Amino acid sequence: MTRQELISQIREKQSFLCVGLDPDWDRIPFHLRSAEDPIYEFNKAIIDATKDLCVAYKPNLAFYESRGAKGWASLEKTLAHIPSDCFTIADAKRGDIGNTSRLYARAFFETFDFDAVTVAPYMGSDSVEPFLEFSSKWVILLGLTSNKGSADFQLQTNSAGEPLYAEVLRKAQEWGSPENLMYVIGATHPSKLAEIRQIAPDHFYLVPGIGAQGGDLQAVMDYGLNADCGLLVNSSRGIIFASPGEDFAEKAREAAWALQREMAPRV
Amino acid sequence: MTRQELISQIREKQSFLCVGLDPDWDRIPFHLRSAEDPIYEFNKAIIDATKDLCVAYKPNLAFYESRGAKGWASLEKTLAHIPSDCFTIADAKRGDIGNTSRLYARAFFETFDFDAVTVAPYMGSDSVEPFLEFSSKWVILLGLTSNKGSADFQLQTNSAGEPLYAEVLRKAQEWGSPENLMYVIGATHPSKLAEIRQIAPDHFYLVPGIGAQGGDLQAVMDYGLNADCGLLVNSSRGIIFASPGEDFAEKAREAAWALQREMAPRV
Repeated sequence: MTRQELISQIREKQSFLCVGLDPDWDRIPFHLRSAEDPIYEFNKAIIDATKDLCVAYKPNLAFYESRGAKGWASLEKTLAHIPSDCFTIADAKRGDIGNTSRLYARAFFETFDFDAVTVAPYMGSDSVEPFLEFSSKWVILLGLTSNKGSADFQLQTNSAGEPLYAEVLRKAQEWGSPENLMYVIGATHPSKLAEIRQIAPDHFYLVPGIGAQGGDLQAVMDYGLNADCGLLVNSSRGIIFASPGEDFAEKAREAAWALQREMAPRV
Repeated sequence: MTRQELISQIREKQSFLCVGLDPDWDRIPFHLRSAEDPIYEFNKAIIDATKDLCVAYKPNLAFYESRGAKGWASLEKTLAHIPSDCFTIADAKRGDIGNTSRLYARAFFETFDFDAVTVAPYMGSDSVEPFLEFSSKWVILLGLTSNKGSADFQLQTNSAGEPLYAEVLRKAQEWGSPENLMYVIGATHPSKLAEIRQIAPDHFYLVPGIGAQGGDLQAVMDYGLNADCGLLVNSSRGIIFASPGEDFAEKAREAAWALQREMAPRV
């Protein structure tokens, strides 16, 4: 999906919501567990209940990989069920030496046909660039993450007085453009969003950390929106596990709708 | 495997060689391609030909993951074929928020029973610690990698004049000990190894970059060895693709033997 197509989807749906498909086995509603593929049945119901309210879906690969071969099969079926007008993100946080990153890129962009993959920046240019070589595909590079460990390295300042995450945002602009590169910016750092917009004004940000992790949507919008919207705000647990019972899909829709209503006046 | 068991293996085999099981499909010998599981047949022959000359095997997950469900099946069978006296490393370079890193840890340590997994440090403490909670299991944290992109962030100095990789080596010692934490230190930076030994004198280092990437084993030994050996030197392509023909396993053995002979006088 191109940048312009993504922006059109956001305007049409009046939403920049991304739903995180992180089907933690221990929280899959009991009545689904005897299905042939409970993970897929769960995801399918969530997608059907939210697809008009969100513009993107983001499966975190750990939830599939940890189930071995059958997890990959659930992921394949889930991806096939996502409507083609939705942007799809493999939350994989991969990154390896060049020839190996190229294999990961092929796996996510060709075998699976995801629109985007999250990538870790620590190994630098040649670990990221192989993901940028695919037309209409995206790298979403970890910038400032939503977890407490982001303070350990990302917030440490370099000899020029610049924190590591800012160095990453700046340097990566030599490798990709706002047409194929986004950044992960956690909602748990709203005060930093204004300065981050100075460094990367035109790029889209994937913003996790709303809901279960404590981030505030209003603050994210106040400091993060740009003229093209420029945000994909993710919620996983707050939507998909809104209810543990048979009404899980209905409650997921309500949770997604509440977020979409907050977003609508701003796009 | 405990640190003491690993050291005993090294002394017994007079080797600290790790063989990288990175079965690039395009380089699998032609005569194997009609087998039911060519990747497994290839790995099996490499393992049989090298198991008395090395102490560790390291499959890079990209080479399996990129083949989908059948790739995971090849990995499972490969792991089952590695003798129990060999140390096994999942080269996965994972790292995510805490609850997600925990899932990856379970996948590699419980579902697959690897001894160690490589982990990326960018997301900090809570992305690494879940991997450290398993008895006799190891984190191998990316420190200074062998690729050219290591210059982009890892070699940049912080406000205290310390390069990022050194900050990572130092900070991670608050999370793990030489009993459950190793570092990836690329062989392409031999001049840095002496200073790195000042920061982490007792930890084992996994050293990639010998052979195809141009690293020099003698320099690595001169600057990297400690009283307990403290090194696992990896070679992948230089061993497993030593010959493209039917004699691939025999040539792999010769390449592994050449490295083991260089190592023997030093352990």
